[in-house]
Amino acid sequence: MTTSGTALVFAGNTLDSPYAKTAHGLIRGSERFQVKGILDFSGSTTDAGVRLDGQARGITMVDSIQSFLKIHPEGVDYFVIGIASAGGKLERAWFPLIEEAISNGMSVVNGLHEFVSDMPKFKDLAEKHNCTLIDVRKPKPRLQQHFWEGKVDRISSKKIAVLGTDCAVGKRTTARMLMQEMVKQGGKAEMIYTGQTGWMQGFKYGFIFDSTLNDFVSGELEQAMWECFEQEKPEFMFLEGQASLRNPSGPCGVEFLISGKSDGVILVHPAGRTHFKGWEHLNRPLPTPEDEIRLIEGFGVPVLGLALNTKGITLEEAKSLQGKYEAQLRIPVCLPLEEGVSKLIKALR
Amino acid sequence: MTTSGTALVFAGNTLDSPYAKTAHGLIRGSERFQVKGILDFSGSTTDAGVRLDGQARGITMVDSIQSFLKIHPEGVDYFVIGIASAGGKLERAWFPLIEEAISNGMSVVNGLHEFVSDMPKFKDLAEKHNCTLIDVRKPKPRLQQHFWEGKVDRISSKKIAVLGTDCAVGKRTTARMLMQEMVKQGGKAEMIYTGQTGWMQGFKYGFIFDSTLNDFVSGELEQAMWECFEQEKPEFMFLEGQASLRNPSGPCGVEFLISGKSDGVILVHPAGRTHFKGWEHLNRPLPTPEDEIRLIEGFGVPVLGLALNTKGITLEEAKSLQGKYEAQLRIPVCLPLEEGVSKLIKALR
Repeated sequence: MTTSGTALVFAGNTLDSPYAKTAHGLIRGSERFQVKGILDFSGSTTDAGVRLDGQARGITMVDSIQSFLKIHPEGVDYFVIGIASAGGKLERAWFPLIEEAISNGMSVVNGLHEFVSDMPKFKDLAEKHNCTLIDVRKPKPRLQQHFWEGKVDRISSKKIAVLGTDCAVGKRTTARMLMQEMVKQGGKAEMIYTGQTGWMQGFKYGFIFDSTLNDFVSGELEQAMWECFEQEKPEFMFLEGQASLRNPSGPCGVEFLISGKSDGVILVHPAGRTHFKGWEHLNRPLPTPEDEIRLIEGFGVPVLGLALNTKGITLEEAKSLQGKYEAQLRIPVCLPLEEGVSKLIKALR
Repeated sequence: MTTSGTALVFAGNTLDSPYAKTAHGLIRGSERFQVKGILDFSGSTTDAGVRLDGQARGITMVDSIQSFLKIHPEGVDYFVIGIASAGGKLERAWFPLIEEAISNGMSVVNGLHEFVSDMPKFKDLAEKHNCTLIDVRKPKPRLQQHFWEGKVDRISSKKIAVLGTDCAVGKRTTARMLMQEMVKQGGKAEMIYTGQTGWMQGFKYGFIFDSTLNDFVSGELEQAMWECFEQEKPEFMFLEGQASLRNPSGPCGVEFLISGKSDGVILVHPAGRTHFKGWEHLNRPLPTPEDEIRLIEGFGVPVLGLALNTKGITLEEAKSLQGKYEAQLRIPVCLPLEEGVSKLIKALR
């Protein structure tokens, strides 16, 4: 982990948007970046942790780089773009901010599909200010990538895929909580990251699924799992899922079940949604947990527990759904952000 | 279609290998290349069409470029690497052949993951001999690629995905036969190619699935289908599948069912195989057609017919399996290479 230090994280127009999910992950915790501030334009000046989930974390919210530097005149090492924009493009409106960050000595970390290090004006400015430009999604040279070769069959850790019925439901957060809870209870557990936020949070083993050439996805997954197994020999390995099996804009999941040879699945479901996120205008209703479990188990991998994302519903509604799903599905159902994941850990053990 | 002309196709050690499947496709027919010869090292001098399936096509088999030029002193425009090597690498043993081809004025067409145009020695030689180096799998710049946007919902053609229970079973060949038979019977049909061979065969609409960044696969598929629909308004659109739903080294298929919104599936099954091709040493038995149909239909898309690849079994065995599967599955089952696909066309109409 060569990239690490203090960071100011840019959350776009508002930290409350699900598009700021990279920022959310960094507020929840990162071993790579010590987050000092969140920049958004909501005008909020509360602690970003309080704003996110009620827990203070000493992270300042600011609406400009200048306001941040007034509070933290020592500056930070990194300016992290903490947004997953539609289309993965760097919005032109952010360019002045990126320039201002570099001019104040911050290196830039970008997880979008459009790369800051390809843009001459940022390159020149970064050179002048002795900063680096890190594009997390820049693919590895193809001959450094791995094809699947079947060594996953020799990984004796219990491999648990954390899948979702949709994008942006908390798969990474749930996987991270499962890993942490398992460790807290004295077990040996690791998480395999598969997105840019996982890398930013400082996980050691993983790859960036969506910016990998299709032919190498299964092999890069297997390689990350293999390195983790060789180095750590964990009892449990949690695989961070991507998108969902039937997400129309990019179905994912079979890779974890088949190429990653999962022993079981924890499914995350956004109880407040009726349609695939971002596609509410199309006739594509979100599958029910029951139907998604049927489909997943059709691949021969059992679903061992359900985690509910409660965004958009009350705690009372969530509790009622929890009871309903437990009775209907006969697996443990938990509300990770409200009550932790110990119920799921019990089911996995 | 700017690249087209006469071609000598390199089939590796032997044309009989399934790894020579690009060569097989080009022998079966290409609107892009007029294939004049097949280069392999088997010593065979029969017509390559006869060698492949018993039908003469006037394609010379040779074991060296010099032998080819003795028969065709006028030379050819292109030297096509007609092999899908394990790992997608250009074998060093082929380098002298590639140099000899360029020195004889042939432009090189390469569908592997390692690119001839990245190698200085070929670049210099090609420049000297006024030849071009075409790497079919070289990805498009990322900002020229498309994200999925849902316009597939407005494509009124009947969209038929041709999937397989494994790799290298004849999905492209079956899709091409279905398209041709439909046209022969007076219908309007197109095929969407998804591999390098489809491009080499001259299909107009498609993309190369396995060398597309994962995030863009669904969008590039949708865009190819959309361009085809806008330009041709076909009644039927056949989608060339890739790999198979449970192929461990790279599961594919959901993209066609969900993002491509298939109306139905034709499934191709290699009746002579017991394990996934290339993974016979692992405990990964090939699914039965019945089980694969169950899984596909779990995504809500009906399987309308089964095509059997008869490699490794006798015609008698194939006919017996055909009867068995028709009784068991209650869908039409055909042997495309032996009896054509008109039975499937009837089912689709």
